[in-house]
Amino acid sequence: MGSETEIAMTRAAAHESLFSERASHIKQSAVRDVFELSLDPTLVSLAGGNPYLQSLPLEKLGAMASELIATQGMTALQYGSGQGTEELRLQICEVMAEEGITGVDPNNIVVTTGSQAAQDVACKVFCNPGDTVLCEDPTYVGALNTFEAYQVRAEPVATDEHGLIPSALRQRIDELRSEGARIKFLYTIPNFNNPSGITLAAERRAEIAEICIAENILILEDNPYGMLRYSGEPIKPLRAYHPDHVIYMGSFSKILAPGLRIGWAVVPPHLFRRFYLAAEAVTLCPATFNQMLISKYLSEHDWRGQIQTYRELYAGRCEAMLQALDEYMPDGVGYTRPEGGFFIWVTLPEGIDTYPLLSKGIEAGVVFIPGAAFSPHDAPSHRLRLAFSAVPEDKIREGIKRLAPVLAEAIAENGVR
Amino acid sequence: MGSETEIAMTRAAAHESLFSERASHIKQSAVRDVFELSLDPTLVSLAGGNPYLQSLPLEKLGAMASELIATQGMTALQYGSGQGTEELRLQICEVMAEEGITGVDPNNIVVTTGSQAAQDVACKVFCNPGDTVLCEDPTYVGALNTFEAYQVRAEPVATDEHGLIPSALRQRIDELRSEGARIKFLYTIPNFNNPSGITLAAERRAEIAEICIAENILILEDNPYGMLRYSGEPIKPLRAYHPDHVIYMGSFSKILAPGLRIGWAVVPPHLFRRFYLAAEAVTLCPATFNQMLISKYLSEHDWRGQIQTYRELYAGRCEAMLQALDEYMPDGVGYTRPEGGFFIWVTLPEGIDTYPLLSKGIEAGVVFIPGAAFSPHDAPSHRLRLAFSAVPEDKIREGIKRLAPVLAEAIAENGVR
Repeated sequence: MGSETEIAMTRAAAHESLFSERASHIKQSAVRDVFELSLDPTLVSLAGGNPYLQSLPLEKLGAMASELIATQGMTALQYGSGQGTEELRLQICEVMAEEGITGVDPNNIVVTTGSQAAQDVACKVFCNPGDTVLCEDPTYVGALNTFEAYQVRAEPVATDEHGLIPSALRQRIDELRSEGARIKFLYTIPNFNNPSGITLAAERRAEIAEICIAENILILEDNPYGMLRYSGEPIKPLRAYHPDHVIYMGSFSKILAPGLRIGWAVVPPHLFRRFYLAAEAVTLCPATFNQMLISKYLSEHDWRGQIQTYRELYAGRCEAMLQALDEYMPDGVGYTRPEGGFFIWVTLPEGIDTYPLLSKGIEAGVVFIPGAAFSPHDAPSHRLRLAFSAVPEDKIREGIKRLAPVLAEAIAENGVR
Repeated sequence: MGSETEIAMTRAAAHESLFSERASHIKQSAVRDVFELSLDPTLVSLAGGNPYLQSLPLEKLGAMASELIATQGMTALQYGSGQGTEELRLQICEVMAEEGITGVDPNNIVVTTGSQAAQDVACKVFCNPGDTVLCEDPTYVGALNTFEAYQVRAEPVATDEHGLIPSALRQRIDELRSEGARIKFLYTIPNFNNPSGITLAAERRAEIAEICIAENILILEDNPYGMLRYSGEPIKPLRAYHPDHVIYMGSFSKILAPGLRIGWAVVPPHLFRRFYLAAEAVTLCPATFNQMLISKYLSEHDWRGQIQTYRELYAGRCEAMLQALDEYMPDGVGYTRPEGGFFIWVTLPEGIDTYPLLSKGIEAGVVFIPGAAFSPHDAPSHRLRLAFSAVPEDKIREGIKRLAPVLAEAIAENGVR
């Protein structure tokens, strides 16, 4: 047995040398770390940003799927175009028009396996190892993982309650340029940012686009939550004003169903071909059946009404969380008041690291994501993300109630130190 | 207008500098080049390797999809595990057992968006730019595109009617090593190779594995057609004997439906974690609904019987193509006689480039893929690929009849030169 183990160890060591340099940069998402925990029914999980699907017309969707396979199965189950079906790309134009993005040529759309895959393609097509991308601080953990996988340096730019701060962006670009950084794009989630819930103010959008255009930095605009605004005035995406400088990413994951894994990218014509070919090279084509099912849903169901249902639902949950926070949170805890989306961003006094609080939270019966996950430097963070999208209102309240003493204790200890 | 055009050109030039080095290596597949043509009903397309789906139990599949959404929609339409559902991974073990791969731990399987995505992940995890991979000459064009996208040097190794030639492999490894090449893996399609239709002989499999193990070169075994053997003796995949050295890729595209985009990789335990994380980073998870639909199909339908139906169908089409080739092909044309799969590989006399023959074929009403597509060097090839999988027998016969004079003319001209 000893020698078998030895052989296995030698083999593993020999194979270790075969990994690519980038392989060591690919790490587990903190959100995934607590994925298993989220399934424990005794815990209230405010960790995962799953959409709430109970309000979907399941019987109807099922009937659509059935009809689709029975009557158009030969097409739906076959390989399709690497760009996605023309019908869906036309409908995606209608979906985007709801947010003020008009005049898009469906030829400039690539349908992808969720918008995560579009992000991967953007890195593949634009980033050499060592290149720099700018992002909001905090930003989406999945994007950070993609950047790491491509050995891209992600540089966070400061945000406040109105989103990315233009002067901070300008300064960071100057600093990075003087260090010789090759900056490829700014990655931004302007609406109801994940994890902060913050929305980038309209006047800042214009200013940020102006800076990026002047500096020849592309904008990668990620807008999965944009349609889920439940209060305040709608603000048009950056893509609406800057079609030649923005690669726009949309998704059906939050307005329909993530389990279908269908998203899209709108790519300026002069950048399109390489983006499209790279997308095609990874999966040949997005799942034909899933695209056709979404097309059928969009053409036969009141999808705008469904989004309205979602809006009301998430508005209620957000409000329930805010009320519970107002009621239970100890002094010294601040939090965002989002106008849409899935998340609230909680700030504790400086000096408190929320990572070790996670296990204490779990002991108390509540799960959250520590703030460090949402910044590229893995530095200790005194913030944390709460998701209200997938949890009923009474559970939200219970979760916040369980969280409060954990945070109060941390604050008390921090004060003593 | 002139100045607007100028601005657009300046912008495009400025953005051009933002592309990654690898972006220029991503090119259109030759198979995709003729994809549009394949849709012209006046042409007989022997180009695309689409599976024939008419024999699927569509009504039943439709009912399964409907029931799935109606009764398990909350799970089916939601995000799932990045590794794929446990149920499907257990069933994949059963599928692989049909080909003699037994004792697989479902924990070592990653479900992917088609096996193309598994290939992409393998390159991502193992290949730095400039690294070398070995492949059969000829090999799958989609794999070549993936290698190019990762700036990997693909080195073709000679094959004959029994597949990859071990002595040629050994020699090529020595040559490459003496040049300082970093060889990461051998990519092989041992059963009914795409495009050649050739099957790697059993004794060669053992010898090739031995060479690779001794040289610390992994084996990336791509086996989408293995279940579609319609004559001759089954030969076990390399994975069946060498679980620690083979990354095995399987797919539901050819035994069920490509439009669902579900494939898988079996990865040795000591290589698993990085492979899995890289797969997850690209798409978060494979489409949950598609996985559950396949699980339902595998558990409620006679899938082995369905594969038997496919086998008989493709056997008939292969036979029809061989008979037509025997009847119509001029002297000097050779072709493989596959025991399974979708393709026949045609060899013309040396000195003939099949690429310019494509347009002549189209004029004559038949489409094929020129051989150059299946080799990394894009050198002129005197071979071409014919696919019989998607075409009814009478059309196959008609296609070959149309092709014959095109080839005869080329041979006559070649003799004159």
